[in-house]
Amino acid sequence: MSRVLLGTPFEPIKRVLIGRPLRTEEAPHQAVSNPVGLAVFASDALSSTAYATQEILIVLASAFAVAGVGVFRISIPIAIAITLVLGVLIISYRQTIKAYNGASCGAYVVARDNLGVFPSQIAGAALLVDYVLTVAVSISSGVDQVASAIPVLRGREVLVAIAAILIMTLINLRGVKESGRIFAVPTYFFVGMTLLTLVTGAFKFFTGQLTPVENVHMVTHTTEPLSLFLILYAFSSGCTALTGIEAISDGVQNFKEPRGKNAALTISVMGLLLGSLFMGITLLANQVQALPSEEETIISQIARAVFGSGMLYGLQITATTIILIMAANTAYADFPRIAAFVAGDSFLPRQLAIRGSRLVYSGGILTLAVAASVLIIVFNARTTSLIPLYAIGVFMCFTLSQSGMVRRWLEVSKLKPGESVKMGQSMAAYDPRWRRNLIINGAGAVLSLVVLVIFAITKFTHGAWITLLVIPAMVLVFHRVHKHYRDVARILSLSKERVKPTPHPVRTIVLVDDVHRGTVRVVDFAKSLGHPWTPVHVDYNDRKTHIVQQKWRERIGEGELVILPSPYRRLVEPIVDYVKAELEKDPNLFVHVIMGQLVMDTPWARALHSNNALGIMSALQAIDRVIVTDVPYQLHGEDVELYPENEPESYEQMKEREQQQKRQRGDETIESGIG
Amino acid sequence: MSRVLLGTPFEPIKRVLIGRPLRTEEAPHQAVSNPVGLAVFASDALSSTAYATQEILIVLASAFAVAGVGVFRISIPIAIAITLVLGVLIISYRQTIKAYNGASCGAYVVARDNLGVFPSQIAGAALLVDYVLTVAVSISSGVDQVASAIPVLRGREVLVAIAAILIMTLINLRGVKESGRIFAVPTYFFVGMTLLTLVTGAFKFFTGQLTPVENVHMVTHTTEPLSLFLILYAFSSGCTALTGIEAISDGVQNFKEPRGKNAALTISVMGLLLGSLFMGITLLANQVQALPSEEETIISQIARAVFGSGMLYGLQITATTIILIMAANTAYADFPRIAAFVAGDSFLPRQLAIRGSRLVYSGGILTLAVAASVLIIVFNARTTSLIPLYAIGVFMCFTLSQSGMVRRWLEVSKLKPGESVKMGQSMAAYDPRWRRNLIINGAGAVLSLVVLVIFAITKFTHGAWITLLVIPAMVLVFHRVHKHYRDVARILSLSKERVKPTPHPVRTIVLVDDVHRGTVRVVDFAKSLGHPWTPVHVDYNDRKTHIVQQKWRERIGEGELVILPSPYRRLVEPIVDYVKAELEKDPNLFVHVIMGQLVMDTPWARALHSNNALGIMSALQAIDRVIVTDVPYQLHGEDVELYPENEPESYEQMKEREQQQKRQRGDETIESGIG
Repeated sequence: MSRVLLGTPFEPIKRVLIGRPLRTEEAPHQAVSNPVGLAVFASDALSSTAYATQEILIVLASAFAVAGVGVFRISIPIAIAITLVLGVLIISYRQTIKAYNGASCGAYVVARDNLGVFPSQIAGAALLVDYVLTVAVSISSGVDQVASAIPVLRGREVLVAIAAILIMTLINLRGVKESGRIFAVPTYFFVGMTLLTLVTGAFKFFTGQLTPVENVHMVTHTTEPLSLFLILYAFSSGCTALTGIEAISDGVQNFKEPRGKNAALTISVMGLLLGSLFMGITLLANQVQALPSEEETIISQIARAVFGSGMLYGLQITATTIILIMAANTAYADFPRIAAFVAGDSFLPRQLAIRGSRLVYSGGILTLAVAASVLIIVFNARTTSLIPLYAIGVFMCFTLSQSGMVRRWLEVSKLKPGESVKMGQSMAAYDPRWRRNLIINGAGAVLSLVVLVIFAITKFTHGAWITLLVIPAMVLVFHRVHKHYRDVARILSLSKERVKPTPHPVRTIVLVDDVHRGTVRVVDFAKSLGHPWTPVHVDYNDRKTHIVQQKWRERIGEGELVILPSPYRRLVEPIVDYVKAELEKDPNLFVHVIMGQLVMDTPWARALHSNNALGIMSALQAIDRVIVTDVPYQLHGEDVELYPENEPESYEQMKEREQQQKRQRGDETIESGIG
Repeated sequence: MSRVLLGTPFEPIKRVLIGRPLRTEEAPHQAVSNPVGLAVFASDALSSTAYATQEILIVLASAFAVAGVGVFRISIPIAIAITLVLGVLIISYRQTIKAYNGASCGAYVVARDNLGVFPSQIAGAALLVDYVLTVAVSISSGVDQVASAIPVLRGREVLVAIAAILIMTLINLRGVKESGRIFAVPTYFFVGMTLLTLVTGAFKFFTGQLTPVENVHMVTHTTEPLSLFLILYAFSSGCTALTGIEAISDGVQNFKEPRGKNAALTISVMGLLLGSLFMGITLLANQVQALPSEEETIISQIARAVFGSGMLYGLQITATTIILIMAANTAYADFPRIAAFVAGDSFLPRQLAIRGSRLVYSGGILTLAVAASVLIIVFNARTTSLIPLYAIGVFMCFTLSQSGMVRRWLEVSKLKPGESVKMGQSMAAYDPRWRRNLIINGAGAVLSLVVLVIFAITKFTHGAWITLLVIPAMVLVFHRVHKHYRDVARILSLSKERVKPTPHPVRTIVLVDDVHRGTVRVVDFAKSLGHPWTPVHVDYNDRKTHIVQQKWRERIGEGELVILPSPYRRLVEPIVDYVKAELEKDPNLFVHVIMGQLVMDTPWARALHSNNALGIMSALQAIDRVIVTDVPYQLHGEDVELYPENEPESYEQMKEREQQQKRQRGDETIESGIG
């Protein structure tokens, strides 16, 4: 068993921030219980109940002038319709989860396996974009609410939002289990408080104590007749309540065994909670005659009508603010997972598919954090205009996922008992209930598509068109990335037959910039290899070249130092020219360039020496048949006294020598640290 | 003659922006004529006449309430005193330049040669800080004036200022000669316009046509009695007219031969111009009864009184704005030179002493640009509060430089005709006029010290105290840098005797991450070296390890692949452990680690592959007796078909293989690009 070394100087800090590294075998222990899973994957969906009713009422308010206060009553049938859609979707997703039998089955995977590459890419692009928007929007709106309460934060929203993203990123880098535990508290706090508000409200209603809320200034942006379009618009606005319900399907692998069963149970509980909260809030909003307002949210109006403005009211407001920020956490749980799927299929950089020290996809977490931060900075923490963008992506994914399942059941229908068929990367087994399943997923697909169309029509001018630009752009990126990996694999691939690695003739060149202990080490190594070698010095400074030649003769005295002219004081180009000339002499030759590298302890020390080794190395690496070796010399290593026979020059001697060099006019120093 | 290769992909852009590289032999042709030299090195000094009179009047205005309008008359004797100081300093500097006989003789060099290391460090620190302040202050104030004229720039001052710094940086990277030519026009335009204003004003005065300026709202910040302190304060404020006069002494080496004579002539002309403009402006300001105001500068009031508000007035204002920005150019000419002196003495990173492709000290130019940009960003382009800081540094340097010359003449006084004595890094020859010189430089030293003391007392609370923090901090940095270079030199130094480079036993380890064409190349090289070698693979992913083992057996079939366990999915640590264990077996052993490196064409392609080679290399470099070799494999190099006998796997085969791997549960990919 290997002990865990300190990987970088930042390792101890990393330990404190995200915890000790986890062994690969510990992965199963990172699975979460159902209550924690609900908190992690449902916070996005549950948080949307905080504003979905309000979104409906705002749209309906446009018809207030024409249709009077009764217009708000229409929110009840709209909410019932949305709850019905929710019900169908939850049942469809349960079925998908069961069919996938414990594997992740988000829209990307389902579309890939059952519909093909292109639909899956659209689903992947839509989901990734949506989750970035979710983080940007929920953090910004949360910070906005916090800033209303704490005025000192006003004007510093961007900074506070970035800080919030940083904290959330760190917690998520600790792993799903730990972030789930941390974030479970606020999620259940919100659910508990809202249920308390609803139950208390219902009790007061039935005992006749519930009175309409007062002192609300209604806001109306436009005045319109009460049209079918307006009702559909209100419906699509309310459908924001349904964003986030697909998160569990992506995260099935995070549940405990039996994963499928646990995930299906959790999504049912989530659907039930989401439906009750949303319907309850909408009904109560109607009873207390809550009105859309710029000063006060619907939730606040309800809580005020139910509790007055005491402590319970304050708790409900606090819980709502926190859950809005927590919604971002679902994105943190899901985005890296989807990015890993897409990267695993070589459509995104493969680094995104690597599990970090805490077994989470650290690359995806950091990508999400950076992308959301950029959005927040660009939009100056005012991201509410981005809200319409993500609901459209969500319904696109629902439609693709459910259609994929319909396709799957159609294939299953052809099977006989005991048979199974390969669908993409998954296996679909015979299922006697395929007809029932087909109908359920079909209903889900049709309903999602209807909502998607309503959404596209009613929200097109509100920014939904941007989605039409971003998703194809992402798909294009996927294609380019995939082409690259394909090309690389083609170039690197070996035939099935055994290859015979063959020795080539080797020509060794030792780069000499100065003559010191590091140089001796380089020559030691060159001699140890046992091939003939040529020492080479680039003459970028006549005076220095003269000194190096003399020192080489006096101190090393082996080999004839070749001097390469460099009239433009360049270091790299003359070496490249020389190496190329050597290569031309023999098409089979390996040119082996050996150079010294002084290894410093600290970045400050490194900054005091120009690191030309890197420049030389990257120029030489571009040439075929050239191999570069770096012979390090540690300035403060354990074995600095490797050559104790050499008395170091005294400080006085050194000063004298330096001064001697300086006395010559034009005291220009070029120092390169390449040995 | 070596042809100039393209150093980096940015080389063509670099060519367009800063011009073709210059050969080392071309340095003498980069010397500037006296008129250009005046423009380059005097713009800072000349620009200060644009505000020096105003600074005096603002201070005197404090006593306006007590002493009435007559108080402004005191500006005339103050200006005479300042002009006298100027005269003495110019004569002193002429003498210094002659004594140094064509070598640079700024305060840093003179203090170093004649007073010692510590005074020279103070001078160096003061000058470097001053020039950064000069750029920040003159660019910000220029941009502020431009923004008054072009309102669309308001609110974007920082951006405009950074753009101005960028342009000035590029022009200066082209070389002193070219930047001098470009910047000569505005300097002479300002001098010409101001002289025209003064002469016209004088003509109108003598013909009785000069009338006081009207519609000026005087500003007074405080009300004070007319005390000696106030007069001294006004004097020290006016002494900002003297900043920048030492620039020529630093830049002597940029003049044509005979350098000393040309530089001395130029400094005289500069002194004459500076004195006339400053006295002329102060006298005319009194005649037109100009008043310090927040809305209108003194120069503007004078021009308005002389020309009315026609085109000539507009030209004077334009010229003034431009020269204020141009003042920064003197800093660009001088800062890199001083930084190079200090770096040449190993008190700053030695890279600052390297001449770039256009024979200027590019590192210093960029450092100045970055430092000034940071100041501008931090102070949000409002840097006027920094003005008091730099005048104090200037007088500190005058004092040190003149005292150094006094010390020098005292040494010279001991010489006999024909003798000379080494003073630091310069030679001081017998001079029969040493007594006269001693008196002149002595007067300069005493006067500078007096001004410095007045400055320190009157401006202490206005920010001069900051200098007391910054300069010692810089000196501390100088010491730390010097200690580092001294330590490195000590460790690396070889004794005078010849060393015998000795071969060591070599143990070769080949890192195998995957088996492909790049791997074959690595094995080819290992075999070419002819030493026994061991292939090693880190098992960070069981499934991948299994595939690599199998491919190794089937395709390479040489050597027994050693598998290093890695329970934490780390790549670097198991390798380090293994290498350390090998090293312990033989204290004389070199461990030679060979790894592959896929070389991509573009940074985009590189971003798609995790570059673990760098991490492994930097970890191994820290260990003594470990040598790392990178065997590159160019993905799009000329010789990709080096192994044409191997038919590449077809796309179908590849997909099939990929899918096969995927089918196994937990589709996690780790890819490292180390071959």
